[in-house]
Amino acid sequence: MTYCVGLKLNAGLVLLSDTRTNAGLDNIATYRKMFIFEEPGERVIAIMTAGSLSVTQTTLARLDEAIHDDMADEATSIMKAPTMLRVATIIGHTLSATRREIIGQMQDFSQQASASMIVAGQRKGGDMRMFLIYPEGNFIEATDDTPYLQIGEHKYGKPILDRVVSPATSLADAQKAVLLSMDSTLRSNLSVGMPLDLTIVEKDACTVTAQRRILEGDPDFMEMSAAWSAALRDSFVKVTI
Amino acid sequence: MTYCVGLKLNAGLVLLSDTRTNAGLDNIATYRKMFIFEEPGERVIAIMTAGSLSVTQTTLARLDEAIHDDMADEATSIMKAPTMLRVATIIGHTLSATRREIIGQMQDFSQQASASMIVAGQRKGGDMRMFLIYPEGNFIEATDDTPYLQIGEHKYGKPILDRVVSPATSLADAQKAVLLSMDSTLRSNLSVGMPLDLTIVEKDACTVTAQRRILEGDPDFMEMSAAWSAALRDSFVKVTI
Repeated sequence: MTYCVGLKLNAGLVLLSDTRTNAGLDNIATYRKMFIFEEPGERVIAIMTAGSLSVTQTTLARLDEAIHDDMADEATSIMKAPTMLRVATIIGHTLSATRREIIGQMQDFSQQASASMIVAGQRKGGDMRMFLIYPEGNFIEATDDTPYLQIGEHKYGKPILDRVVSPATSLADAQKAVLLSMDSTLRSNLSVGMPLDLTIVEKDACTVTAQRRILEGDPDFMEMSAAWSAALRDSFVKVTI
Repeated sequence: MTYCVGLKLNAGLVLLSDTRTNAGLDNIATYRKMFIFEEPGERVIAIMTAGSLSVTQTTLARLDEAIHDDMADEATSIMKAPTMLRVATIIGHTLSATRREIIGQMQDFSQQASASMIVAGQRKGGDMRMFLIYPEGNFIEATDDTPYLQIGEHKYGKPILDRVVSPATSLADAQKAVLLSMDSTLRSNLSVGMPLDLTIVEKDACTVTAQRRILEGDPDFMEMSAAWSAALRDSFVKVTI
């Protein structure tokens, strides 16, 4: 499995993904699940992926191929599409077509191959937008009422987001919120693992503001995790019933 | 869905269940999921249920019938079985047989009917034990390494248990822990709902020490929930990354 979470806030986009993939328990590997496409100042698109690695890798490769195709136009290249909605539509079509193709190849094994993606970004002159793209290619969008989207093992890390995230949350607090949401997930689910990829895109920058890979044993992350555990235990002692 | 959680601690057993059942979103009802069988001072058995209501109700009815059957012996009545292990075995067999029967009746609709149970208790002269019984009738047991068992929507409420519960946890703290675990689940999942049933069984009492139904709007529960939210938000502000 996987855990990816994206926040769309008034101040910008905050995205966090893990890197663990597994096929069974004895075939575990690290793969990037956060992909950035940008033309700084003009357009930035971040894609996070969950699900079958063969589906997500092929989908990403095809999106990339379309970008570098000389014949690419606004209907096929996410770097030329005129709006973020059209970007989401292109990704949805590519994901859905790839998935159907791979399921066709796997028929003999009656296995399923599925994948979903979070796509977030902004083009110059447009609004920041963030979408969750389903395996079938349809999608939903983050709004002020629900400023976050999750894919993969989303349940463990949802309570903290429900409690502290609103569109007015600052980018610093948002970074803390997604890292704590990930921390709860890492503790409770083996199929989600370090390192983590964190990306921050400030509003109207149309470029990645900060990008960071957090490695296993990262002192800042460990300190935050320990402080959060201690704070939770303190809170637990204080609360009465 | 459902959320039930049981803790087996040095000091006793602490069990909490919700009461929401649903068949689709427009068919929601309240059903008790916590059942007590006791002969005070001699034997106490608590059963919590999750899954298809037709399976759990029929299983409970059959267990009850077997107890009141004049022909019942230690192989069929959970009130006569000589050990908690044998109690779990009887319940496992009854659950599995009931489930297979109901699935047989539903074949035409190619629907699934499944259920799982947590069984906890003690008989005089024996140890306190707690089991999670799977739909197939097999079971696992809570140990000092893993002193809690959950059935139903277990993911939202797991992080808090992982952090604060150990076999040495007091009954008062344990009660707080299961209520906070439930609180996180109630907030994040519509299919789990008030009222709640809480049961506490002190070690070697061989009878229910305390039993309480917590209704929607219960002032103590609301106060605890609000205090926990406030404490979490405070902790969130204090933690830095």
